[in-house]
Amino acid sequence: MDQRGLEAASSEGPLAIICGGGTLPFAVADAVQRRGRPVVLYAVRGWAAPEQVARFRHHWAQLGQFGWFLRTTRKDGCRDLVFMGTLARPRLGQLRFDLGTLRVLPRIMMAFRGGDNHMLSAFTRVLEEHGFRVLAPQAVAPDILAPAGLLGTRQPSERDRIDIARGLAVIDAMADFDVGQAAVVANNHVLAVEAVEGTDQMLARIAQLRALGRVPVPPGVGVLVKAPKRGQDRRFDLPTIGPHTVAGVACAGLAGIAFAAGETIIAEPQEVAEAAAAANIFVIGIGAKEAAL
Amino acid sequence: MDQRGLEAASSEGPLAIICGGGTLPFAVADAVQRRGRPVVLYAVRGWAAPEQVARFRHHWAQLGQFGWFLRTTRKDGCRDLVFMGTLARPRLGQLRFDLGTLRVLPRIMMAFRGGDNHMLSAFTRVLEEHGFRVLAPQAVAPDILAPAGLLGTRQPSERDRIDIARGLAVIDAMADFDVGQAAVVANNHVLAVEAVEGTDQMLARIAQLRALGRVPVPPGVGVLVKAPKRGQDRRFDLPTIGPHTVAGVACAGLAGIAFAAGETIIAEPQEVAEAAAAANIFVIGIGAKEAAL
Repeated sequence: MDQRGLEAASSEGPLAIICGGGTLPFAVADAVQRRGRPVVLYAVRGWAAPEQVARFRHHWAQLGQFGWFLRTTRKDGCRDLVFMGTLARPRLGQLRFDLGTLRVLPRIMMAFRGGDNHMLSAFTRVLEEHGFRVLAPQAVAPDILAPAGLLGTRQPSERDRIDIARGLAVIDAMADFDVGQAAVVANNHVLAVEAVEGTDQMLARIAQLRALGRVPVPPGVGVLVKAPKRGQDRRFDLPTIGPHTVAGVACAGLAGIAFAAGETIIAEPQEVAEAAAAANIFVIGIGAKEAAL
Repeated sequence: MDQRGLEAASSEGPLAIICGGGTLPFAVADAVQRRGRPVVLYAVRGWAAPEQVARFRHHWAQLGQFGWFLRTTRKDGCRDLVFMGTLARPRLGQLRFDLGTLRVLPRIMMAFRGGDNHMLSAFTRVLEEHGFRVLAPQAVAPDILAPAGLLGTRQPSERDRIDIARGLAVIDAMADFDVGQAAVVANNHVLAVEAVEGTDQMLARIAQLRALGRVPVPPGVGVLVKAPKRGQDRRFDLPTIGPHTVAGVACAGLAGIAFAAGETIIAEPQEVAEAAAAANIFVIGIGAKEAAL
């Protein structure tokens, strides 16, 4: 199919979902199908959960098989695609490259020297040059973005609000370095800044430091703050929150979770709210206006 | 002894060393005594190593006993003092306060809401109001500051130099938040930013993430960068490097260590150089001019 054929078929074709680990890709797939659009999952072997993948039309994909990906999406009539789910950055030595990959590899390698943003942006540009439209998960399934305001009933205190503001400022200060999208602040102390370890590991670290008596605030004080890096390509890698995040915050002895409203994905809001209520954790979306105060 | 009496006795009196954990306080005590000035260690129970403390004139001290500290230093004729060694910030519930402490507590508590800098600065002001001169360890034992240039023989590569510059920039960006004094950068990725966990734990995290395949660079790439927070009161809490730092860097699979020259303490440079040679790790002090490039 040539470029024009692809374009003509696009609006009616199924949505391709490149599907990594976690529950988010399936929440998106369900939401898209509820809206009447078929999906095809390109499930990354070793990351996507097989029992969930089986619920959808799917292929098992391997990283490094870009030629295969081009042929298969063409057969499936997929022109629109989203990336979803966790995916560790692979070691190059572990990858097998097909011919299609080798053609685009130099550009990907150039991007490999930057952080995640560079890498994903470069891959997106390559896909776009091959006629794909790379869409944000939230563009095809807007329900997954968490709005401003409380999720649940517990309110942050005045002190929590100060911690939230400081957490947002820390994430903002780190934006130039393509680092994490989360920090933990307690009673105005920055306890942790997230980098490659991810939110779950960062929270586990706080729990561990607390057990060693090295957290300078009592249990029940402190906030996990999540917000997207400024300047990030918001199509992928928005901050996400799930029931496991609530569990991690509870183990770390923090008071709650604050996130950038409309820029944070909560795939299972009901489960998050229930977990938060059970653990007496507040969960709040902070609007852009509020954040600026 | 009144204020004037204290002042008159000062230049000849022994140096008081408030002595936390680690080997640094003893390296300083030895260096000061080599220069002919006697020392008295105020060894913090639970932190200072007893067998080393026993080598010097000393008292065992407990946090929260400021009245006792005032009386004892007066008897000892100590007016100049230094803080040295690791000391976890205590939980308030674990402290016993004497009367002298209760008098100054409100000011300390105000500072408790900020980070380490505020806390130490407030404590220093209180000490100064009581007639003490709080000195930098490097003012009484200049040998402990590591100079610019290589410690050992291995040179950083061009790529390492780029990682060093990025690490210094990350630490600079975090200065307003009174967070850590270290970061790990590998092939231009910021792998970790230090907060309350400290350098050793941060390095252990990199080793762990590497074992899980989550470090996007091969072994032998990446740099631990240590530099003091901008605006920090440099009398205490300068970044320190020891043989254990080299061991941690080796376990994390990094290429080397870069530190801010003249602002970083290496108490045992010979041991550090030997450990670095054994592990094939570079150790380099970066001068202010170089850092600005």
